[in-house]
Amino acid sequence: MTDSREHFQKELQRLNDWILKMGSMVEKSILQSVEALKKSDSILAQSIVNSDDAIDQIELEVDDLCLELLATQQPMAVDLRFITTGMRVGSDLERIGDLAVDIAQRAVELSSQPLLKPLVDIPKMADLAGKMVHKSLDAFVKRDATLARTLWIDEDRADKYRDLVYDELVEIMKKDAAAASRAIPLIIISRHLERIADHATNIAEDVVYMVEGKVIKHLPKQA
Amino acid sequence: MTDSREHFQKELQRLNDWILKMGSMVEKSILQSVEALKKSDSILAQSIVNSDDAIDQIELEVDDLCLELLATQQPMAVDLRFITTGMRVGSDLERIGDLAVDIAQRAVELSSQPLLKPLVDIPKMADLAGKMVHKSLDAFVKRDATLARTLWIDEDRADKYRDLVYDELVEIMKKDAAAASRAIPLIIISRHLERIADHATNIAEDVVYMVEGKVIKHLPKQA
Repeated sequence: MTDSREHFQKELQRLNDWILKMGSMVEKSILQSVEALKKSDSILAQSIVNSDDAIDQIELEVDDLCLELLATQQPMAVDLRFITTGMRVGSDLERIGDLAVDIAQRAVELSSQPLLKPLVDIPKMADLAGKMVHKSLDAFVKRDATLARTLWIDEDRADKYRDLVYDELVEIMKKDAAAASRAIPLIIISRHLERIADHATNIAEDVVYMVEGKVIKHLPKQA
Repeated sequence: MTDSREHFQKELQRLNDWILKMGSMVEKSILQSVEALKKSDSILAQSIVNSDDAIDQIELEVDDLCLELLATQQPMAVDLRFITTGMRVGSDLERIGDLAVDIAQRAVELSSQPLLKPLVDIPKMADLAGKMVHKSLDAFVKRDATLARTLWIDEDRADKYRDLVYDELVEIMKKDAAAASRAIPLIIISRHLERIADHATNIAEDVVYMVEGKVIKHLPKQA
């Protein structure tokens, strides 16, 4: 391997490392935001808000590194797609971090009153969304389109959870009008979790395109 | 100008044209989705759902063109940033198109029953969101950071509309529990419009970065 090729490989490895680091941080934020909601723990919720700056910072590092690689290495074919996909992945992860912050802020607001009902589906949804993020990034760094495709089934499950949460809470509000101000934030939280699942699916779609050069994002999906 | 430089400039112009075309399509979808909601017009709503394929198709054209430019032209400095920003803008516009489709689908669902109340703030919000998309793309093609910065004020206005809609609908639900199934979709629609405004703001942030090389997206904003 020539020196410059070796240097390029090292830089690609650095990109992998940043993305995985960012991924593990947002995964933690997702799980902890719902934990804070479940336990009415506003200190935990605040710690998620505080850690978002560090996530934003890594997105900037990812972006800078990708631009530098594009400008200095003139990458071709699969390496070019890996780098432009890396930029997109960074931006999806940053938005996932923002959604976790929004969930945490709602947890703080809701912590002053008792929860409307014990949470069952929302924690399951958070668990699923966190796993989807993890799996999509695993597929990215391993350039594994088969693994990426397993997210289509997860996405359907996330949609079903969102509908379950919605139907249950609307029923509660129909019986008890005073419940609205405690029920709607839970509906919004379930929609945020579904958007997190969507971002993970976007990453998985980008991985399939990166590996196979096939655009699948606007086609009906088969797992 | 050399032939190859001239060719490159033509290709950048083509990128501009695609982005503006995509922008005018999503702007139309935003306004029409709320028009369909207001008039309980499910035929208009369906036409928005149908036109989304064409928007998706242009995103793919934008993406292919950008990858081709990165691979063949080895662009530097501001041109490099223009192209990578173009890819991000395409992806923001595609997601805006999806949000308009979601609003249109809710308009269809709601069209079977009378509207809960005459819509006032939601159409204003749609108008604002459409203008923000227009302005952010104008700033992109003109590479105008000053124009991009005017979106910070618009974003605050969009947030205020979202809060107004939310507060008003929660009050209605507190008085009339049966209203929930017609009120919540309106809350979700107002949040979609706010997300559209957010995407436009993301584009504006990317434009400032593209022009000035300054990252402002994670800093407190001054107009």
